[in-house]
Order: sequence, then C-alpha cells, then structure tokens
Amino acid sequence: MTNPASQHDINSPGNLARRRHGQSVLSEIDGQQGEAVIDSLADINPALAHHVAAFAFGDIYDRPGLDARSRQLVTLGVLTALGGCQPQLRVHLGAALNVGISREEITEALLHAAVYCGFPRALNATFTAREVFTERDDPPAS
Amino acid sequence: MTNPASQHDINSPGNLARRRHGQSVLSEIDGQQGEAVIDSLADINPALAHHVAAFAFGDIYDRPGLDARSRQLVTLGVLTALGGCQPQLRVHLGAALNVGISREEITEALLHAAVYCGFPRALNATFTAREVFTERDDPPAS
Amino acid sequence: MTNPASQHDINSPGNLARRRHGQSVLSEIDGQQGEAVIDSLADINPALAHHVAAFAFGDIYDRPGLDARSRQLVTLGVLTALGGCQPQLRVHLGAALNVGISREEITEALLHAAVYCGFPRALNATFTAREVFTERDDPPAS
Amino acid sequence: MTNPASQHDINSPGNLARRRHGQSVLSEIDGQQGEAVIDSLADINPALAHHVAAFAFGDIYDRPGLDARSRQLVTLGVLTALGGCQPQLRVHLGAALNVGISREEITEALLHAAVYCGFPRALNATFTAREVFTERDDPPAS
Amino acid sequence: MTNPASQHDINSPGNLARRRHGQSVLSEIDGQQGEAVIDSLADINPALAHHVAAFAFGDIYDRPGLDARSRQLVTLGVLTALGGCQPQLRVHLGAALNVGISREEITEALLHAAVYCGFPRALNATFTAREVFTERDDPPAS
Amino acid sequence: MTNPASQHDINSPGNLARRRHGQSVLSEIDGQQGEAVIDSLADINPALAHHVAAFAFGDIYDRPGLDARSRQLVTLGVLTALGGCQPQLRVHLGAALNVGISREEITEALLHAAVYCGFPRALNATFTAREVFTERDDPPAS
Repeated sequence: MTNPASQHDINSPGNLARRRHGQSVLSEIDGQQGEAVIDSLADINPALAHHVAAFAFGDIYDRPGLDARSRQLVTLGVLTALGGCQPQLRVHLGAALNVGISREEITEALLHAAVYCGFPRALNATFTAREVFTERDDPPAS
Repeated sequence: MTNPASQHDINSPGNLARRRHGQSVLSEIDGQQGEAVIDSLADINPALAHHVAAFAFGDIYDRPGLDARSRQLVTLGVLTALGGCQPQLRVHLGAALNVGISREEITEALLHAAVYCGFPRALNATFTAREVFTERDDPPAS
Repeated sequence: MTNPASQHDINSPGNLARRRHGQSVLSEIDGQQGEAVIDSLADINPALAHHVAAFAFGDIYDRPGLDARSRQLVTLGVLTALGGCQPQLRVHLGAALNVGISREEITEALLHAAVYCGFPRALNATFTAREVFTERDDPPAS
Repeated sequence: MTNPASQHDINSPGNLARRRHGQSVLSEIDGQQGEAVIDSLADINPALAHHVAAFAFGDIYDRPGLDARSRQLVTLGVLTALGGCQPQLRVHLGAALNVGISREEITEALLHAAVYCGFPRALNATFTAREVFTERDDPPAS
Repeated sequence: MTNPASQHDINSPGNLARRRHGQSVLSEIDGQQGEAVIDSLADINPALAHHVAAFAFGDIYDRPGLDARSRQLVTLGVLTALGGCQPQLRVHLGAALNVGISREEITEALLHAAVYCGFPRALNATFTAREVFTERDDPPAS
Repeated sequence: MTNPASQHDINSPGNLARRRHGQSVLSEIDGQQGEAVIDSLADINPALAHHVAAFAFGDIYDRPGLDARSRQLVTLGVLTALGGCQPQLRVHLGAALNVGISREEITEALLHAAVYCGFPRALNATFTAREVFTERDDPPAS
C-alpha cells in the first residue's frame, strides 16, 4: 500500500478492508438507512461513497477515546449549527436514538443548541427530529 | 411579573433571581473566567449580559433532561462548526474540562467534528484547545 | 422564583406570565401564523415552544430601545445571511409587512444584503418573499 | 452617467448596455436556464434581476484574468461550502458542464470539497449534481 | 459602453463615474475610514477596490427605496450572522452611528440578533462595537 | 489491516504508508509551511495530524481525476466562503502559487467569489492573500 496508485484504488485490499469495516460500523449504528446513503452514491460518486464509509465511519467513528453517545452529541451540534443538512441530520438522529440517546435528551440538546446557534437552526433541527420520531412510531411499509 | 414593563426591567425581582441563578451556574462550571465575560459586558450592553446569565445559563443550562457533559459536547460541536467563536470556545473548553470531559475526549471530539464541518474548522478549534490546555498547566500569574 | 426548580418549570407562575406576554407579542406581529409555529412545537419540544414565546418574543422582541421596524430589518439581515431558514423567514417577512415595511423596502433590503452575503442567499430570500407576497394577495382558503 | 439618478435607473443607456452584455454572457454559459432565473425575478425584484445580469455576469464573469473553467471551480467551492443554495448550484453545475468541466471532474471536486467543508455539504452538492446530470441525459419534455 | 472591453476597463469613463459616485457615498457615510479600505486594496486587488466603490456603494447603497438607517440595520444583521467580519463590522458600525443610529439602538440590535444567530455571534459583534465606541470617545492621535 | 484495532492504530504499517504519502504530497505543494502545520499538531492531537496528512493529502489531494490547479481553485472558493480560516487560507494560497496559479488569477478568483459569498468574505481573503504575497517577496529571515 506504499504507492499512491494503490492508495487511490478504492478497491485495493487495504481500502476494501477499511470500507468494509466502515460499512459494518454504519450498519450497526444506523441499520438500513445508513447503507442506503452509501448505495445511493454508487452511481454518481463511488469515491465519495468509499470515503464516507472507509474514512468517516471506518477510520474515525469507532476510534477508541470517545464513546458513540458522545460522538452523536457532537454531531448533532455540528449539523444543527450548519443548517441545511436535513438528510444527514435524519441519519444521525436515527443513530443517536440507536446508541441510547433518548428523545427527551435529543430535544433538550436542540433547545440547548438554540443558545449558541440561534432559534431558527434549532427549530429546523427539531422539525427534522419530529419526522424521525414519527417514522419510528409508524414505520413506512416496505 | 405580568406586565411587560417589569418583564423588561432586568433588575425586577423576577429577573434578578433568574440572573443570580444563572451567574451561580456559570461560576460553578467556569469559575472566574465565565464571570469575567459577564462583567466585561456590563458597560457596553448590560441587557446582553443579563440575558447570557439569566437565559443561557439560568433558564437553559442546568435544566433537567440533559447532563452537563452532554451539553458541553453539543456546545463544542456548535462552536466548532460556526467558526470564529474563539472567546466562547475558550469558555466552553474550560467548562468541558470542569464537567469531567478529558483532554483526550475533547481532541477526539474535534477530530470527529472534522468529518462533518471540515478540517479547517476542526484545526482552528484544536489550536484554541491547545491554548486552554496550556493555560491550565501553567496558569498566568494573577 | 428564586429556586432553579421553579425557574425550569415552564408552567410556574413567573414563566407562564413571560410566555403569555410573548404569545401576545407574537400574535400582534404575526397573527395566526406565529401562533401556529408555537402550537406545532407543543408535542415535540414544549420547552423550545416556551422559550421561543417567553424569551424570544416576551423578553426580547418588545424591549424598549429599538422599534419593531428596526428589529425586523435586523432579523431579515440575519435570516438572509444564515440561509436555509425559509420557515422562519416566512414568519418574519410577514411580520415585516405587518409592522409597516413595504414590499418595495423588503426587496430593496434583500438586494442590499446581496452585497454582504452574496447573490445566492439574496435570491433565495427573494424567492421566499415572493411566496409570502403571493399568499397575501391570494390567501389560501381556510 | 455621472449623476446618481441615472446610475440608479436600471434602464439608463449605460445600465441597459451592462445588463445586455451580462444577459448574453449568461445565455452563453447557461442557455435557457440562466435566462429563466433572470426572468423569474422580473416581477418581484427587477433591480435584483438587473444586478445579477449587469454586475454578476456582465461586470465580473467574463473579465479577463481568469478563464471560465477556473471561475466555475471557484463557484462550485463557494456554493458547496455555503450550503442551502441548490437553485444556484443547479445553474452553476450546468455552467460547469457547458464550459467543459467533465462530470468526473465535478464529482471529484465535490469529494475534494468534503475535506474542507465536511461531508454533509459535499453530499448535498453531489445529490444536486445527480439531478443535473440526470436531466442532461433525459431532458424534460418542453 | 456597449462592448465588454470597456465594461471591464475599470477606468473607462462610465466605470470611473460609477466609482467616483460610490467613493463620494462611502466618504459621506464613513469618512476617512471607508476611503482607507478602498485605498488599502489599490495595490493588491484594484478591481475589487473598484467594485466595492462602484457597485456596493455607487450602484446599491444610495438607491432610492430604502433609507440609510434601514440599510445599516440590515447590514448589521448580515455581518453579525456571518461572523468573522470584524473589519467590515467596524466600518458599518461607524456608518450606523453616522446615519443616526444611536449606541443604545446598536447594542439593542445585537441583543436582538442573538435570538436568531445565537449568543456567540452577538457577543463578538458587541466586542467590536465596544472598540468602535471607545475609539469615538477617544480617537487615536493622527 | 482488516481488524479495527490496526485500522485505528495510526502507526500501523498501512496507516504509516498512507501518512507518509500524504506528507510527501503536502511537502511538494507547500514546502516547509505545510509540514509545520502537521508538526504543530503532534503534541495536542496526533490523530488529527495523522488524518490531515493520511486522508486529506494522501487519500484525496493527488487522486487522479482533477488536477492540482483545479483543486486549489475549489479550495480557495470553500475557504473564502467559510470565513475565519486564515491559517488554512495562508497554506492554500501558498499552494495555489506553487501549482502555478498566478497572483492575478488569485485576486481575480477572490473578486469572483464576492458575487457568491459577499464582499466581506472576499475582502478578508484578499487581506490574507496580501500577507502571503508580501511574505513571498520578502521572506522572513529563518
């Protein structure tokens, strides 16, 4: 893996291993929804799909040193502050629930965020949370 | 407290109580540094100073439903994503340490944030963290 | 109201008074649309609904020292610059009209904002303004 | 053109010439889609429509000193980082293709941007790129 | 002025007239400080200096349809929300004072902005306002 | 490299190879300045330093499919739009010059960016460009 050509080949053994591990992390925290994001990129930008899985979830997400709950709280803060990231917020609100953050903690976290990034961003994240919670209560037929 | 005039009088008994509670919360989580922020606003914008204390720390910060550690993780996410908030990041990095988030967890949280808001914002927050950590190791003589 | 428990009880007499005043401010400036926002949060995040009413509209919006017209101009500037806040922009474009800012002044304000936050943000706020203006001319049947 | 009145008259001969040149630049780089943007503003904010054409495209876009390809790469970077600018991103992704940037270069540019503004912004821009590419392959019947 | 070459020549008679008008607007609202910004760009980016003067101040700032006070309120909202624009905020806080917005109105506007873009941005704009006010009280010797 | 433990060990053979390649890319495009950034993180956040080198420069920067000049133009767009990223902008303005983008193209790119993210962001990036250009003309004694 020392030459750049194999480093940039997303199907080299090393990259495939990193991506597979990332996909398993993503599946564990977000079930089918996370996989769907990766799959949906396969046609348009396979290298982006690779790096979301291999880097974001494989290299970073389950590093020791910070538990999953803490990571999701940071992620909620970042995505709420950025605004305009509803698809990613949906994935990570689902992940937050999956790692044991309660609905009450999530809405409290969004109220807390309002102090730092303003009420509009907090409101919009809350509207997305409602969609995610509603879908959990009443999942769409597959 | 039912008429707007007293609601807008930052020294009405109700507002004074809210502010005092907020100042005690702020002192508890950030010692002298937090108080210094409030004091520094007294001349230029006393109403802003009031609302930082009474609303941000008194009304919101110690609400039940989300522990202090979780609040600081959300705050780190928001402030890192916003960028350009070094003074506030300094206060909240100090608060994060005070509520028991370790240095290793903080730097790990900033690496995690890089995935969602990009490396430049994560790097700049890390440079601020270094300043805060260094000051803790070697506090300026008072 | 000196103990935190009652400060955090959104239905304590003091908080109820603050919220009721805020709701009256919101109703005055934005009629049914503003109330609808608060009501829509009641199920998912009642504390956020409380603070939008009690803090944003009750504590801050009708403070003396800045007239409603000026507040709406600042708000238009902030929401245009943030981007991605269409629901809030709709509320505040309606409020701007209600406090006497003309359509021509609003579109001129958005052109002005383009200089400082770029044409895309100004264009998107203008598209939202068109929706608000159109709805005023031809309100949806209730 | 030395007095402000004519400077602010968007139909003065000087301003008309600037706007016409801008419209021809816009038509050249983006065909009917760009003109549609300008036309869509005619009712709500004709001065904004004028300045998009006269300033953004007439005064700036075809200045010597930077080729069209380079300008579109800068624009993609700005719009991806801002987020929430899907309509403008659609126009400029179309323009990028028109000035000879390939689909592969566009998706690579968006992966590259992920490093600097985070994966969520890059993902959302990629979803918009897919819409633009799909529409090119299978244009809507007119 | 119908050919692009003269449109892009910042010293063509038409562009010179637009720039001179802009410089006179800028001088009127911000005295020497505004001119200093333009002059400071002359070496590094004379075309940017031209367009700040000719477009931002000449074409837009004194257009009829919105008074100077209203424009400055929008600008304060935009610059506070963007964050990281201290040099521009200094210029426009000075301009706000010059067009008759009082210090109390400015600090109230920044408290108001906190609701929409969060306390950190409002605090940082307030710190810049303090610098501007202090300098007015005690101007640096020239 | 198939187990997560080695994936998260930044000194595993695979990660070391990725990082070394990244460091060579960084050195090539930005000489000592880029290396200084990595080195400066070694004490506070070695994993962040690793991922800047291994991921940002090793995995992404020299991927085929987009030339270095195009990458730097995208990066300039992103960093200008984000604002508050002066340290990273300095590195990438240096890199832009190193890959053959002229000073005139850089300042033209920043004028172009003003259309999309507003004049304040473009001005602040231009001030940083002036520092970088000045330092090139008159490098600090080492």
